[in-house]
Amino acid sequence: MTGALPSVELARAYLSRVAEPPAPALVAFVALHGPQRAAALIRSGEVPAEVAKVTTARAEIWRPDADLRAAAAVGARLVTPEDDGWPAWRLLSFTAAAIRGRADAAEPVALWVRGDPDLDVAELTEQSVAIVGARAATGYGEHVSADFAHGLARRGFTVISGAAYGIDGAAHGGALAAGGRTVAVLGCGVDIPYPAGHARLLDRIAAAGAVVSEYPPGTRVGRHRFLVRNRLIAALAEGTVVVEAGLRSGASNTAATARTLGRMVLAVPGPVTSAMSAGCHAMLREGEAQVVTSVAEVAESIGRIGGDLTVEADAPVRPTDSLDPRSLRVHQALHERTGSSPEQVSMEAGIPLGQVRAVLPMLEIAGLAQRGDTGWRRRSGRSVPSQAEGGGPITPTT
Amino acid sequence: MTGALPSVELARAYLSRVAEPPAPALVAFVALHGPQRAAALIRSGEVPAEVAKVTTARAEIWRPDADLRAAAAVGARLVTPEDDGWPAWRLLSFTAAAIRGRADAAEPVALWVRGDPDLDVAELTEQSVAIVGARAATGYGEHVSADFAHGLARRGFTVISGAAYGIDGAAHGGALAAGGRTVAVLGCGVDIPYPAGHARLLDRIAAAGAVVSEYPPGTRVGRHRFLVRNRLIAALAEGTVVVEAGLRSGASNTAATARTLGRMVLAVPGPVTSAMSAGCHAMLREGEAQVVTSVAEVAESIGRIGGDLTVEADAPVRPTDSLDPRSLRVHQALHERTGSSPEQVSMEAGIPLGQVRAVLPMLEIAGLAQRGDTGWRRRSGRSVPSQAEGGGPITPTT
Repeated sequence: MTGALPSVELARAYLSRVAEPPAPALVAFVALHGPQRAAALIRSGEVPAEVAKVTTARAEIWRPDADLRAAAAVGARLVTPEDDGWPAWRLLSFTAAAIRGRADAAEPVALWVRGDPDLDVAELTEQSVAIVGARAATGYGEHVSADFAHGLARRGFTVISGAAYGIDGAAHGGALAAGGRTVAVLGCGVDIPYPAGHARLLDRIAAAGAVVSEYPPGTRVGRHRFLVRNRLIAALAEGTVVVEAGLRSGASNTAATARTLGRMVLAVPGPVTSAMSAGCHAMLREGEAQVVTSVAEVAESIGRIGGDLTVEADAPVRPTDSLDPRSLRVHQALHERTGSSPEQVSMEAGIPLGQVRAVLPMLEIAGLAQRGDTGWRRRSGRSVPSQAEGGGPITPTT
Repeated sequence: MTGALPSVELARAYLSRVAEPPAPALVAFVALHGPQRAAALIRSGEVPAEVAKVTTARAEIWRPDADLRAAAAVGARLVTPEDDGWPAWRLLSFTAAAIRGRADAAEPVALWVRGDPDLDVAELTEQSVAIVGARAATGYGEHVSADFAHGLARRGFTVISGAAYGIDGAAHGGALAAGGRTVAVLGCGVDIPYPAGHARLLDRIAAAGAVVSEYPPGTRVGRHRFLVRNRLIAALAEGTVVVEAGLRSGASNTAATARTLGRMVLAVPGPVTSAMSAGCHAMLREGEAQVVTSVAEVAESIGRIGGDLTVEADAPVRPTDSLDPRSLRVHQALHERTGSSPEQVSMEAGIPLGQVRAVLPMLEIAGLAQRGDTGWRRRSGRSVPSQAEGGGPITPTT
């Protein structure tokens, strides 16, 4: 390998195009070498087989300058793990999920963000709810989606969705009507208005929040990419509300990922005669989601998990200081030497099992709990890196 | 006390009028002395203060012959705990509830039953589901009620309800349309068609099942009596489905009693915009009911609890022989010497807490579990009296 290393921004822009996400091998390679050296190594082909396997087809395409210009042309920028605005806290969940053996769990190598540069993604998603659901929504579903989004936006929540027709569009619209913040996560480049009928809506979202994608400019939509995008929606939000969903729908997929990442999943019931509510009812019946019927219930459910675990920027804190009372009870119910099942923790802490299941991964990320062969154990905690210090444990700054 | 004792039938007919149900003191007094002697003692005023308190106002009214004639005039008869057709298995739940400190838990001293004498109440309720809900139901609620009742009746379930307008009427109608069996439990005498607009419906119910009341002929409806009636609906059915209910409604009351009696409670979701579904959603949110959206789900939920615990008539059996796999696992998770909480049992048995809570009281009734200060303990089991042998532990035959 010869020649000067590219800048971090150029390196990350290149890395965002070099493999189809999610690409755990690429993320690990970047964590090992840093983005600049990793980019140079990939470009010259000096990579291990696992990395070559996901990068070979695109390693020769070097066009980060052009991509950054294309982004700038639509008011977008590249946000990297090295930036203050990187939502490290949310995306670290992927690392926790990967530790738990989820092979496809990989954080993005960068995010393309269209919107006001003063409004960073970390801040936007700090208090946030994803509202997702069917494209072929009913009038009832669209009404509830807009109504919930409106009420949550008024309470200060950022509404995250996928800009699709149906539930997604109604959610963004409801948040905008309340003068609130909203984030659209796309399965294509941020310079591509998709769906075409939502071009004007996407402009309004960019002006009031952000349009986000891990795909470089010009990337076309694809069925696979919607599923990959869904995992990002689940990760960026504190909790996910499924308003309407058929059985085995994209929204159910987002909800499943949210559960894997330790996020609260909420489902809105509807008429049992409606196929568009069947997915929500199935989740409720299987205990995979909590029922919610109002904005107040969503705020209560989301607010009591996770949100208070967010670390303050610029100030390392003792992790237990930032625990909400419920998370603290879960932490106290764990033992240092013997493992506990979530059921045992639920009993000891007197907290519903579903909430314990949501809290434990958050404690794990905070270094306050550890999952082992015998169950969950308490850890005394460590200082969590603040956002100003950059990335997470496997994504060092360079 | 002088004179010959009345017949059991006359004694029970008198006892059904002598106190406003539920009357635990009266039931205990009858269990102690037998119905004939108890009737004579009450009539002559030779009773302890607790019994006098509930019987004084009516002790002098001796009209069992007239009541039996009034019943016969509308095709009704008196069914007593001494009869084969007494649904002892279901009504014993009140005894279990009373043991657990529920002061108002008292089985009826007799049931007035309008219907085919060849169709006894024990048989009618052996495989049964209560479908209850709001009088001011929506079109959606009435549709679901009729649809569920139709499907459950076709699967052999008797549909039990309260003959009210709205959800109740739709449930009876659905069962009748399927050519199935249905039972109406009234809060007034069986000779009074209430509500008046359902006189024709009540005739059809009596022809296809039974119209049942613990109130003697001529008793008028009263607000208090609907709540007392609701406890009987909950007791007679294996499980209760709430189709539509406002917050703090009669249906919620029936559901609460069903839970107390260890019965499965199921709730049908509906639009979150409908006040008539708010009670169902509240139960789901509080974990007080399981969500159901189809006949198949109701049959599955009801079928797996309780039903298989029913003992065969005419043949004492080892209680554990009749346990379904789930109840057996709950039984096996109990310990003989140390008490367990339902949560511990849920963990050990790997069965959801709600189902454990439903199974434990059934095991208690079957003599296979005992609740004490330290929790639930296993009992090795005893032979359960068959229905042919008559009543339960505190209602001896005379």
